[in-house]
Amino acid sequence: MRMVDIIEKKRNGKELSKQEIEFFVNGYTNGTIPDYQASAFLMAIYFQDMSDEERANLTLAMVASGDVIDLSNIDGIKVDKHSTGGVGDTTTLVLAPLVAALDIPFAKMSGRGLGHTGGTIDKLEAFTGFHVELTDEEFTEMVNRDKISVIGQSGNLTPADKKLYALRDVTATVSSIPLIASSIMSKKIAAGADAIVLDVKTGAGAFMKTEEEAAELASAMVRIGNLVGRNTMAIISDMSQPLGNAIGNSLEVKEAIDTLEGHGPEDLTELVLTLGSQMVVLAGKTDSLAEAREMLKGVIEDGSALTKFKQFIKNQGGDPNWIENPELLPQAEYKIEVLSDTEGFVSEIVADNIGVAAMKLGAGRETKEDDIDLAVGLVLRKKVGDPVKRGESLVTIFANQKEVTDVEMMIKENIRIGNDIPESKLIYREIHS
Amino acid sequence: MRMVDIIEKKRNGKELSKQEIEFFVNGYTNGTIPDYQASAFLMAIYFQDMSDEERANLTLAMVASGDVIDLSNIDGIKVDKHSTGGVGDTTTLVLAPLVAALDIPFAKMSGRGLGHTGGTIDKLEAFTGFHVELTDEEFTEMVNRDKISVIGQSGNLTPADKKLYALRDVTATVSSIPLIASSIMSKKIAAGADAIVLDVKTGAGAFMKTEEEAAELASAMVRIGNLVGRNTMAIISDMSQPLGNAIGNSLEVKEAIDTLEGHGPEDLTELVLTLGSQMVVLAGKTDSLAEAREMLKGVIEDGSALTKFKQFIKNQGGDPNWIENPELLPQAEYKIEVLSDTEGFVSEIVADNIGVAAMKLGAGRETKEDDIDLAVGLVLRKKVGDPVKRGESLVTIFANQKEVTDVEMMIKENIRIGNDIPESKLIYREIHS
Repeated sequence: MRMVDIIEKKRNGKELSKQEIEFFVNGYTNGTIPDYQASAFLMAIYFQDMSDEERANLTLAMVASGDVIDLSNIDGIKVDKHSTGGVGDTTTLVLAPLVAALDIPFAKMSGRGLGHTGGTIDKLEAFTGFHVELTDEEFTEMVNRDKISVIGQSGNLTPADKKLYALRDVTATVSSIPLIASSIMSKKIAAGADAIVLDVKTGAGAFMKTEEEAAELASAMVRIGNLVGRNTMAIISDMSQPLGNAIGNSLEVKEAIDTLEGHGPEDLTELVLTLGSQMVVLAGKTDSLAEAREMLKGVIEDGSALTKFKQFIKNQGGDPNWIENPELLPQAEYKIEVLSDTEGFVSEIVADNIGVAAMKLGAGRETKEDDIDLAVGLVLRKKVGDPVKRGESLVTIFANQKEVTDVEMMIKENIRIGNDIPESKLIYREIHS
Repeated sequence: MRMVDIIEKKRNGKELSKQEIEFFVNGYTNGTIPDYQASAFLMAIYFQDMSDEERANLTLAMVASGDVIDLSNIDGIKVDKHSTGGVGDTTTLVLAPLVAALDIPFAKMSGRGLGHTGGTIDKLEAFTGFHVELTDEEFTEMVNRDKISVIGQSGNLTPADKKLYALRDVTATVSSIPLIASSIMSKKIAAGADAIVLDVKTGAGAFMKTEEEAAELASAMVRIGNLVGRNTMAIISDMSQPLGNAIGNSLEVKEAIDTLEGHGPEDLTELVLTLGSQMVVLAGKTDSLAEAREMLKGVIEDGSALTKFKQFIKNQGGDPNWIENPELLPQAEYKIEVLSDTEGFVSEIVADNIGVAAMKLGAGRETKEDDIDLAVGLVLRKKVGDPVKRGESLVTIFANQKEVTDVEMMIKENIRIGNDIPESKLIYREIHS
């Protein structure tokens, strides 16, 4: 087999065999296929697409390129959740204790990553002492006993995907549905879950700007998951404005606690109940989404979700008392209100630019080497559709620097206020195939 | 400027600016743009094509990447000719003395190259002592005095094209009209001619299998040439069977001599007169193709073309007496006739496979390091449309080995004989834009 023939075959729009795809992934991972052939191949895929079969084979070949997490010692159906990114997304922090409180194992491998705020692990580290450096045995035991644990990402998970992603980034081949879908799904499948709920974001703050694009990606991922034997579904949800109110690490932990106590932001609560219901159904606890939602509401109301969160933080080295006293979490030195110059209704909050404003304060990382300031960030005081009076606060800035004029300007530019109540929507649709 | 943005722009079907194309060519030539970005870019061009303006800018940027031959010290309009390859193509050997005999300067830079037989220089080296290692001064003086000279190719002509061609070969991006056209034209333009006649082959033995494909490539090259200020036109000619009868170095020299004496093969003579007439017109000797043709026929009939050939061979170190006595040229030890098993009319001679048969005898090079046997080759005794009797010779094999069974078999497989006289055509059309 020669790589140039495989490139030509794809360039000509033909379907590649499992063997050809494996030849590429293995050769590229071990360095016998050079970057310049891989990048020409990726560009050919960009133009010629891949069939579902090819996408599944690409995903499986990338899974096989590195370590695969074995969760078989954990009892029950392991359901994973993945969001395609966005701004102020606190769903994992809330969902983990919520489903675990219903005896559904939440065994998550998580990373740090780049972005407007830190990853799930960064956020949890707002609890001083919390750590994810667990042995496989500790992780398995914790999940079997308490149904919840988060472990740091293995260094050698899907190395083929890592190498390909870096190449795509510099060759203008990032925005290709088969490549995005197989990249995400390879990591999810290598992480070992039996079933997967995908939360695909759409809108200004998301990679997929339109509902149609988001649905295409969601459907691609769902089909891959189901083809390789993982029960997979997706929700298309809104990211035209940030989710919830908090953007920042400690601030999002506080918001997660609020939500577990039943008084979180409306949109975050609704999305958590929607995704959670799907997880409860995939875990086989009930066939009815309505019943699943009642079960989730039940563990919020009776306090068992919050108790589960405390147990989780304690198990991994944090102080659970901080949950009752969130003022113990890292706090910013300055609070600055961004006041409205005008009146009307909030018509738009440009999510990604608001995220960049939070990153400027130090809430996120631009490069792997950057440190994160866990205390800083933003809290939105108004969301799309809310009425605003002149002089009312739109956003509270939590900063460890006094001078935040540029952040204030950026926020004002990216919150638009109009005369009419705009339409807004949180959940667009479910995707099952 | 970032290469990834240029790739993305082309991927999205946008037209690149002169500056962007120069940024790519310069960066790729000097190594600041890596192969993996170049190959993704080439694949994007494969799918999104390039405008005439982009093609011209790519060509000029490749010209500027290396040495440019200065023919300004040579008097008159320098007309170059380029054929896109084929089997048994002896046109340059005939055209050079033919146009020079009409006082049109023929100042050619030539290479050795790979293929079924050697390049023009290899063929001319059948005259022992003939050499192309001339100083620029010698070359200029020869052309000014005698209107004819061939010089060896500069080491640093269009290095960007060399590097890109090598990359295209291993990334399935060879067969792209804008890339082929700019590659050929960059070399022609760097070689310094004022006007260019292109002979684009079509048929089984050519890269462009159909007339339409050949016309598309021809038109692309003609438009580039004219856009950059070189008067350029193209002829589409047949390569569904080998041109002329001889395939092999000495054998083709002998055939060129026959043609200059007025008794060469009909198709070779016709193609030479067609291309030559265009060269005469482009050189400004007349406006009329018909008159140009008569002028060419005149220098064949009065012997001045043959005299010019002798002068040329003598000037560059060969013995001109060999032209009168071609049996002095390298001769093969064995002559083996390939006899027909059947009778009818020759319906097809698969040019490229017949070329491979000649290469097997040692007439051409597969890799740069291969030696060429100047004596060996094939002479076709029948061409498409000729009647054949059982036991008549189809081809004479000239070999320096006794055992040629595999070559004989290959020839028989690739000369088809049917019951009807097939249609055949030599010149398809002229392309001026």
